[in-house]
Amino acid sequence: MRRSIATVSLSGTLADKLTAVAAAGFQGVEIFHNDLVVSSMSPEEVRARAADLGLAVELYQPFRDFEAVPPRLLAENLRRAEHTFAVMERLGATRLLVCSSVSPAAVDDDALAAEQLRALADRAARHGITIAYEALAWGRHVSDYRHAWRIVRAADHPNLGLCLDSFHILARDADPYAIETIPAEKIVFLQLADAPALPMDVLYWSRHYRCFPGQGDLDVTGLLAHVLRTGYEGPLSLEVFNDIFRQAAAMRTAQDAMRSLIFLEEAAGRRLGGASRLTPPPPPVVPTGFAFAELAVPETGPLGDQLTALGFARTGTHSGKPVELWEQGEARILLNTGSAESEDGPALAAIGLESPDPAGSVRRAEALLSPVLPRRRGPRDAPLDSVAAPDGTELFFCRTARPDHSSWTDDFRTGGCAPSSPPEPSGEITHIDHVALTQPWHHFDEASLFYRSVLGLRPHESLELPDPYGLLRSRAVSTDDGRVRMALNVAHVGSHDRDVAWQHVALASRDIVATARRLRTSGGAAPLPVPGNYYDDLKARHDLGPERLRLLRELGLLYDRDEHGEFLHCYTVTTGRVFFEIVQRIGGYRGYGAPNAPIRLAAQHAHSS
Amino acid sequence: MRRSIATVSLSGTLADKLTAVAAAGFQGVEIFHNDLVVSSMSPEEVRARAADLGLAVELYQPFRDFEAVPPRLLAENLRRAEHTFAVMERLGATRLLVCSSVSPAAVDDDALAAEQLRALADRAARHGITIAYEALAWGRHVSDYRHAWRIVRAADHPNLGLCLDSFHILARDADPYAIETIPAEKIVFLQLADAPALPMDVLYWSRHYRCFPGQGDLDVTGLLAHVLRTGYEGPLSLEVFNDIFRQAAAMRTAQDAMRSLIFLEEAAGRRLGGASRLTPPPPPVVPTGFAFAELAVPETGPLGDQLTALGFARTGTHSGKPVELWEQGEARILLNTGSAESEDGPALAAIGLESPDPAGSVRRAEALLSPVLPRRRGPRDAPLDSVAAPDGTELFFCRTARPDHSSWTDDFRTGGCAPSSPPEPSGEITHIDHVALTQPWHHFDEASLFYRSVLGLRPHESLELPDPYGLLRSRAVSTDDGRVRMALNVAHVGSHDRDVAWQHVALASRDIVATARRLRTSGGAAPLPVPGNYYDDLKARHDLGPERLRLLRELGLLYDRDEHGEFLHCYTVTTGRVFFEIVQRIGGYRGYGAPNAPIRLAAQHAHSS
Repeated sequence: MRRSIATVSLSGTLADKLTAVAAAGFQGVEIFHNDLVVSSMSPEEVRARAADLGLAVELYQPFRDFEAVPPRLLAENLRRAEHTFAVMERLGATRLLVCSSVSPAAVDDDALAAEQLRALADRAARHGITIAYEALAWGRHVSDYRHAWRIVRAADHPNLGLCLDSFHILARDADPYAIETIPAEKIVFLQLADAPALPMDVLYWSRHYRCFPGQGDLDVTGLLAHVLRTGYEGPLSLEVFNDIFRQAAAMRTAQDAMRSLIFLEEAAGRRLGGASRLTPPPPPVVPTGFAFAELAVPETGPLGDQLTALGFARTGTHSGKPVELWEQGEARILLNTGSAESEDGPALAAIGLESPDPAGSVRRAEALLSPVLPRRRGPRDAPLDSVAAPDGTELFFCRTARPDHSSWTDDFRTGGCAPSSPPEPSGEITHIDHVALTQPWHHFDEASLFYRSVLGLRPHESLELPDPYGLLRSRAVSTDDGRVRMALNVAHVGSHDRDVAWQHVALASRDIVATARRLRTSGGAAPLPVPGNYYDDLKARHDLGPERLRLLRELGLLYDRDEHGEFLHCYTVTTGRVFFEIVQRIGGYRGYGAPNAPIRLAAQHAHSS
Repeated sequence: MRRSIATVSLSGTLADKLTAVAAAGFQGVEIFHNDLVVSSMSPEEVRARAADLGLAVELYQPFRDFEAVPPRLLAENLRRAEHTFAVMERLGATRLLVCSSVSPAAVDDDALAAEQLRALADRAARHGITIAYEALAWGRHVSDYRHAWRIVRAADHPNLGLCLDSFHILARDADPYAIETIPAEKIVFLQLADAPALPMDVLYWSRHYRCFPGQGDLDVTGLLAHVLRTGYEGPLSLEVFNDIFRQAAAMRTAQDAMRSLIFLEEAAGRRLGGASRLTPPPPPVVPTGFAFAELAVPETGPLGDQLTALGFARTGTHSGKPVELWEQGEARILLNTGSAESEDGPALAAIGLESPDPAGSVRRAEALLSPVLPRRRGPRDAPLDSVAAPDGTELFFCRTARPDHSSWTDDFRTGGCAPSSPPEPSGEITHIDHVALTQPWHHFDEASLFYRSVLGLRPHESLELPDPYGLLRSRAVSTDDGRVRMALNVAHVGSHDRDVAWQHVALASRDIVATARRLRTSGGAAPLPVPGNYYDDLKARHDLGPERLRLLRELGLLYDRDEHGEFLHCYTVTTGRVFFEIVQRIGGYRGYGAPNAPIRLAAQHAHSS
């Protein structure tokens, strides 16, 4: 089916938008009236540019406040319509979106609305134009698609049908099953948008907070399945009003949009089963764990000291690059002194994910428009494919030390003891529990959709964490079994350049008390200080007993619990952009210690200022 | 009365907040629990720091989910309370804010709530602490202050009273008159906050969008008057949760807060008349017009050519500084080549306002915490006082060519013809219609309150204008007679550094057709091109007649109308940060052509890229 997007979804000039839409692989575009009016390109030039780019002008929109008015106003509205038809002919557009009226002049009279829409369709027909009538969720008299359908059915004109919009339908909780009762040929157009669940007026919500399907909380998949069951064969078109996308680079937003649409089609296809006419992308290959975390460092000394203090041992050196391998249990950290990313101090440059099928992982990523990166390894190295995540972090798909596949560890010369037959554990760390990445503020929704669609991770609740210099958004994504967990944080743009772009690797310890003691005595890694007030407050919040509380306070450990279990954690101070977290999950605790994040953030600011 | 503010209203560490609160002149502070918990200062250190700064710790807050619970939970809640009392004793706080419960464990039983609050007050009394019970607007069973008052009255304990919060009362439209039935001694604390009218859930609205009184749409003045009529003598305390203030510099936000409180007290005092115990600041001196606009320029040539093309004549040169005076009608423009502000090209550096009492204007500004600037003029110059507006623009208070006062024009040597006896008009410009200033995004609310409180201007509706690279907020402020009008715009922080920080001077023409013709033929000032699509759209929107439409299109004039009249306007292209607008108001048109702003913004981006 043809993929389309409304120009209003993107930032920039109309020319920029068309270029971005074509580059992302869309076949069509909805031209938003305001984008045309402010453009220095004439409708003929827009038509030619779209044609050059291989884009069909699928729809022109919106035409407002037309139907169910007194005769004098009808004449004026038809005059406006003729002007609009003239622009559309120049533009080469054959579908016009007519929104249900919000005008106080409109009367609540379905028969009148049908009669006037029929008159409009009659005139449209002379220009080869079809009217797509849409129930706005905040329409004055018509705010439900089923009501719009009754009017369209009564009008009964071949050049009049419906525009269905997932936002308008789902935001009002209108039963979407009735869609299947509409004949496919009367669905002229389908607009798709999602939105996060936010407790506000539907108009305000629609204007500022729509997002691409898969980034919000609406069941756009279910809606699309209903529409496809009718036999609808028109374009699938994204229409998103979003304050952030208005400011972000159009090329990137368009790619994000296309990723969303491919992922949505796949999900709808699954619901339809054999009846689906959609071609799915290669299936996701869900990662089964972390293979490694790679830190770009200016020198290995300080981070090496930290790792030693945590009980890691250096177990290998790369045969062709200045990269050291450090191991403890199944936790592996690479220190790379050959990367330009360490310019401002240590940074998390890459993550290795265990994949049951690394080639399949890459095919999936590529089909979902993720940049596949050129192999960095030398000709003798094990083949290792990687893609770029939205924040630039490189993701490698690995099979570590499995007989059926070459292993990245083969490229490392043993340094003391053989890699992948881990050294006698000197500490309590067993594996990487999660990694946390800071996203640029205008790519947060893109990032959660990326991990969801490319890696098959499940997004969790979006949180707001109070940092001393602003509220930070945070959202975890994970596999169902919890073997791969990632925390995505967004830094608000502060007024004093205190952008928080910290990244961290959380290491699971089977005895965090021992690890914390080790940290305190070794001197190699300074633990992040926790204020005494935290423990006074913890005492008031939880009845932990004096002994346990004393231990937590003495070792600077933070505490949380959920209905499944308990969580103990602590941090090292930040070096460059990077710090380590040590965590111990007791019982089935599922969170990330979010209630303690304000404590950490305040301490980190105090420590870095 | 004592002025106070909650630490949650400000950005930064607790130590930063206390410093900012004291520097802005507050006498007291509410310590927000989370600010203390994340702080590295112990409660004793906070107490000592506050005392050093001359700040009373007026309140500790909040204590949540206490009342109307089953016995087992009551014991646990009293245990929590004892911990809180212990912290408060260390902190030196004697009032505790208890919010109405939002817990599902709370039962709807006023008698039980009263009984348990009495038990809490009994325990609080032993620590010399008083409980201030507040009805949260989203409380589970208690969400109205009148309900909270019934419970407090039933509990009848000297250490239990109410906390009234303007947001919680006004956001729910609760009748505020009943406040006057509450005895003053039972109002333990008063919290003040405003909020813009936004169509959303009250909890979400409260958490993100509160602002200081005078910056929003709630009648905080009326509420304060009701409270003062009870005889309440406790602190007036600002408590604002605002996403932007969380990110802005604390010192500046605290000053903004103090300005808001002084202005609020003045307004409430006016409502109370003779009964007021508040000392008002010096009264505002409403400006009567624009004396001049001063542009900082690297060289006078290009701007001088533009002014010539618009019909201005150079009429004087400053006797001691590199400043030229250009005049036409009552419009006066200064070109200053001696200012550092012209580093990145021409910029609007100062505005001269006609004041009936310049010294009074300065006294007012000073009382409202505006920085009074050192006089820039030489010893022989006419005395001229100025203050800094929030965006750094210098505001001068002038009496131009009046017999009762020295005039700034006396410092200018005539250059051809005498200033203030304007030259034979060579054009149609009569005066400065308005100036438009771009505010840093985190100082927008501060700016509108500044012009409202310091100059007595009236704020108009806040608008959102679609720029190709983001939505821009815009708000006009004006005198009632329209002789001084200013448009305040905010630039969103874009992802590609396209911050729009344009400023402009709008010149009123009595014949814009002639002025536009002059512009087109002179060559000295390029008019901003208007896309042809605009006129196609205008034709569809308004029935203007072919002749008029042809003229508008030919001259690149934009058109708007409101219920009072019509508006014609056009622009010059931007030089540095500055451009000119030419406007003609026909009939009583009151706006600023906002519907055409997207056309201008798109054309400006196209022209500057």
